[in-house]
Amino acid sequence: MLHIFLLFSLIFTSTNVLAQDFCVANTASGIVTPSGYPCIMEANVTSDDFAFSGLGVPGNTSNIISAAVTPAFVGQYPAVNGLGLSAARLDLAPGGVIPMHTHPGANELLYVVHGHITCGFISSANKVYLKTLKRGDVMVFPQGLLHFQINAARKRPSLAIVTFSSPNPGLQILDFALFANDLPSSLLEKSTFLDDAQVKKLKGVLGGTG
Amino acid sequence: MLHIFLLFSLIFTSTNVLAQDFCVANTASGIVTPSGYPCIMEANVTSDDFAFSGLGVPGNTSNIISAAVTPAFVGQYPAVNGLGLSAARLDLAPGGVIPMHTHPGANELLYVVHGHITCGFISSANKVYLKTLKRGDVMVFPQGLLHFQINAARKRPSLAIVTFSSPNPGLQILDFALFANDLPSSLLEKSTFLDDAQVKKLKGVLGGTG
Amino acid sequence: MLHIFLLFSLIFTSTNVLAQDFCVANTASGIVTPSGYPCIMEANVTSDDFAFSGLGVPGNTSNIISAAVTPAFVGQYPAVNGLGLSAARLDLAPGGVIPMHTHPGANELLYVVHGHITCGFISSANKVYLKTLKRGDVMVFPQGLLHFQINAARKRPSLAIVTFSSPNPGLQILDFALFANDLPSSLLEKSTFLDDAQVKKLKGVLGGTG
Amino acid sequence: MLHIFLLFSLIFTSTNVLAQDFCVANTASGIVTPSGYPCIMEANVTSDDFAFSGLGVPGNTSNIISAAVTPAFVGQYPAVNGLGLSAARLDLAPGGVIPMHTHPGANELLYVVHGHITCGFISSANKVYLKTLKRGDVMVFPQGLLHFQINAARKRPSLAIVTFSSPNPGLQILDFALFANDLPSSLLEKSTFLDDAQVKKLKGVLGGTG
Amino acid sequence: MLHIFLLFSLIFTSTNVLAQDFCVANTASGIVTPSGYPCIMEANVTSDDFAFSGLGVPGNTSNIISAAVTPAFVGQYPAVNGLGLSAARLDLAPGGVIPMHTHPGANELLYVVHGHITCGFISSANKVYLKTLKRGDVMVFPQGLLHFQINAARKRPSLAIVTFSSPNPGLQILDFALFANDLPSSLLEKSTFLDDAQVKKLKGVLGGTG
Amino acid sequence: MLHIFLLFSLIFTSTNVLAQDFCVANTASGIVTPSGYPCIMEANVTSDDFAFSGLGVPGNTSNIISAAVTPAFVGQYPAVNGLGLSAARLDLAPGGVIPMHTHPGANELLYVVHGHITCGFISSANKVYLKTLKRGDVMVFPQGLLHFQINAARKRPSLAIVTFSSPNPGLQILDFALFANDLPSSLLEKSTFLDDAQVKKLKGVLGGTG
Repeated sequence: MLHIFLLFSLIFTSTNVLAQDFCVANTASGIVTPSGYPCIMEANVTSDDFAFSGLGVPGNTSNIISAAVTPAFVGQYPAVNGLGLSAARLDLAPGGVIPMHTHPGANELLYVVHGHITCGFISSANKVYLKTLKRGDVMVFPQGLLHFQINAARKRPSLAIVTFSSPNPGLQILDFALFANDLPSSLLEKSTFLDDAQVKKLKGVLGGTG
Repeated sequence: MLHIFLLFSLIFTSTNVLAQDFCVANTASGIVTPSGYPCIMEANVTSDDFAFSGLGVPGNTSNIISAAVTPAFVGQYPAVNGLGLSAARLDLAPGGVIPMHTHPGANELLYVVHGHITCGFISSANKVYLKTLKRGDVMVFPQGLLHFQINAARKRPSLAIVTFSSPNPGLQILDFALFANDLPSSLLEKSTFLDDAQVKKLKGVLGGTG
Repeated sequence: MLHIFLLFSLIFTSTNVLAQDFCVANTASGIVTPSGYPCIMEANVTSDDFAFSGLGVPGNTSNIISAAVTPAFVGQYPAVNGLGLSAARLDLAPGGVIPMHTHPGANELLYVVHGHITCGFISSANKVYLKTLKRGDVMVFPQGLLHFQINAARKRPSLAIVTFSSPNPGLQILDFALFANDLPSSLLEKSTFLDDAQVKKLKGVLGGTG
Repeated sequence: MLHIFLLFSLIFTSTNVLAQDFCVANTASGIVTPSGYPCIMEANVTSDDFAFSGLGVPGNTSNIISAAVTPAFVGQYPAVNGLGLSAARLDLAPGGVIPMHTHPGANELLYVVHGHITCGFISSANKVYLKTLKRGDVMVFPQGLLHFQINAARKRPSLAIVTFSSPNPGLQILDFALFANDLPSSLLEKSTFLDDAQVKKLKGVLGGTG
Repeated sequence: MLHIFLLFSLIFTSTNVLAQDFCVANTASGIVTPSGYPCIMEANVTSDDFAFSGLGVPGNTSNIISAAVTPAFVGQYPAVNGLGLSAARLDLAPGGVIPMHTHPGANELLYVVHGHITCGFISSANKVYLKTLKRGDVMVFPQGLLHFQINAARKRPSLAIVTFSSPNPGLQILDFALFANDLPSSLLEKSTFLDDAQVKKLKGVLGGTG
Repeated sequence: MLHIFLLFSLIFTSTNVLAQDFCVANTASGIVTPSGYPCIMEANVTSDDFAFSGLGVPGNTSNIISAAVTPAFVGQYPAVNGLGLSAARLDLAPGGVIPMHTHPGANELLYVVHGHITCGFISSANKVYLKTLKRGDVMVFPQGLLHFQINAARKRPSLAIVTFSSPNPGLQILDFALFANDLPSSLLEKSTFLDDAQVKKLKGVLGGTG
């Protein structure tokens, strides 16, 4: 019976040259397409490819924002390639803030592992949706909308895990986008109505030129 | 300047009759479509719609599997409608197990909040991908594949948060699918090769007939 | 032959209760779903539904930005419902600017009808892509990324037509999102690093509170 | 054990207000969206909804084309709503032909149940892909491309089952599109280079005016 | 006129470096992406690529299940790459059964070519949808749900053609997934509630270890 | 502060090996997938890649149709790869016509830059939707449906810009599809009901054989 059963099985396993249930990214192939990276051949995929321990390590929050973001996007976690999912860890020390930013390529769901976090996003109608979340709470942030997270625990760190509806959600941090490149100040000021002094101050801090 | 600016703005806010950035589900409308529920009109949406506190409450694990699943699918958490995301909380008491199951409609990403969890899934090629995860680890389970989670912490509970690539991932628990309905035992045995005694025993436990 | 042919035809026309080739939006139905509005029944659709003349009328640029945006999104132009396309007209008087903004829900393609327009967008890597376009040039702006358009014609107006990869691309104008609502200044300043004076000045102009 | 197990189960069955695995069309609701029809509530769905016997009945081929098409699109077979699939039956009497046509909304896969069928399609590059298929053969016809099927069995009928990658593939039969409506002959001739006599002859046969 | 017309045509044929209407899989490229295989260059595609005769050959049913499945997935039939469709042939000898299985990646539509087949699937709500189909009947099986097919013709073979909503639907046969690999019996029994004797018996038959 | 901020930034820029916001096509790679071309590495992408000036050049209308189509599809304009958008320029001299055609892979939105254009399309229900558009008007043409554009300005040229819901919409011009290849006249006549004389005349003009 075994023998005969396996004959039956062989028909299907022959189709497995295409990793049909998943597509662990071959990030070393030098190829990326609109649908993601090429897949590692299924024969070379192991259990270790599907697990990722990088989110278990606290980010270094000894910085100006007292916060850290540790991504598990497809670049760090190749197993999410093609799965419509990725994740990141947000560490917020006391006073910490994840500055105003957007994810151009994905919706986001935030889960508070511990602490209290004040979260807000702004819609196309310019309405603010603001909540202070406690341990165990979740909140969603729709794709492409400006949002931020601020530690609301007075003297303790807060920790959140966020997941995204894409393996590669992108991240545009407002201050970096405006002040950390060579966009000429004249164009920047004309398109944002920010004062020249404000622009130059933040360009100075963030290394912007122009 | 304000006046003039607002004139400019009015052009766009008029388009907001369509909740253009999100679509919080009107689950009371009696209507569901392949793309999800109709949206609550944007004027009636508040910050409270986007946050959800149900995953902060431990599930009751005083049951035969010493485990509990608390979903935040679109039925419980209408804000995820149309966002390609949902979540659930897995409580695993000592000895707890989330039995073999599939999600027909979504990929899954599991994050271990605390404890140790042994996770496994089986591919179309019948290969087992098995890992014991610790606090902070993540693992993905591709859509439609059989998988399970077992508490690997000897005497302590474990907690995981899972997210899905769909607002409504579905859940087919193998034992319920096979033994908790009226599928005639003769057909069940013929299609699963399980022994009649085994089938009748589990139908007895789970209330199956036929 | 006619009679018989029509019998053959009748089989198919019976399926036309579903507007199978298009789905002109019934924006008066009070229903919106993640995939768009319900369709007007095909029998009630006419040629006039597919054409739209609103983009032929110059926008009023007598305002602080010396510019105007005239949308042909699904709210104004119901025929694009479900088609993955929409459009808008950009009028730029001398000195005019479409301020820094994003479209959370669509990619954009801009075509210069007449004049010269300086266009820029900023990527997730904070790189600026900047071009001054002339009549007949096109440029694309990827979804969710900050971008702007400035009239580069010294003393003449410029005109552009933009199309989007969604019937409802959304529009988040940076200054409105930051300064035209009730987001508390303390949170805004903490999440943007803008000075209090700058924030209060622009809130004053744009009617923001908090 | 049963009692406790069922408690566990109840959590999930509460989400079934949304027919989460399927969405049998409520074609009587008067509502259609870009993603399809609203779903019949799951409690009202029976086994009979998923099966369809209409393709078991030979079409009437006593007509000018000696052929018949029997559709199982979402209009006839509501269970395919949202499933990305539909089907049709092609009966070809001796000499029968399914005239040149396209499906604007789906790819097609044809299976020959019995007989011989000459199938052809024409690509955007104007290349003809032509095959005569025998019993058991399959062939695919990419979306939106002109194609036809002709009975190649000399004196016997042929039968094919076709499936589509959409519940509502649409069907544009070339002769009907050109000659069975009120498109003015002058416009038709100018846009097709067909002679006036040819146009008038076929309009006469097919009931066209203008 | 020909010359001028062809000039007009040349503009477009230059775009044909991208096989724009279809994408016949180059399965020998060693590359697979989440959207499928790379395309064979259009110049090398012939009519023979679009037709497939493998489903015309009866499968060998001289085995323990008295049944055979012959796939025409993208691995066997490269033309379906990117088309959202594939097919398979089910041969059921007297007493034959296609055992309980799922397709993690596609919905399925079954057509009975001859004979009688008892088909069933089980929903996320654990409800059984069961039908005995006759020649010409069709039935759909939603993605990821357990289902089976059993020959209901007493002494004759039955034949079905199934099509899928994906070029690579995947196939997880329950018994193979549970008993034909190295999943430790302790984990398997804990997650399925099957008795140790039952597990060992079927592992013995199917070659499972652990 | 700068130093610390940049550390924070570095985490994210490391993910930019995948051009996460866009995917400018590497059309020279010899690889195409169902989702499009591989991306040029982001480090090699410049502002010039996003702009395209080819639509600023009038097409040569000194031909039999007194019209010209200049495409900006992904083959000509690699920046649209993966963006769900492309464009083309339609030049219509006096008496000019874009002959009856379909786009198998995209919906279309037409904008009249100057002149008057009579546009028509025909639905699956064989209904004609016909409009004469003036400067500034737009009209949509649903995917896969036959349509045409005719210059309605008596003695002046007309110009339109069209955009598509795909980077590679395809184009099937009816006369080329029917008469400019080797489709045997017997099959063509049988499947279109066109007279042999008509077929042979147009094959003669367009270079068809068979």
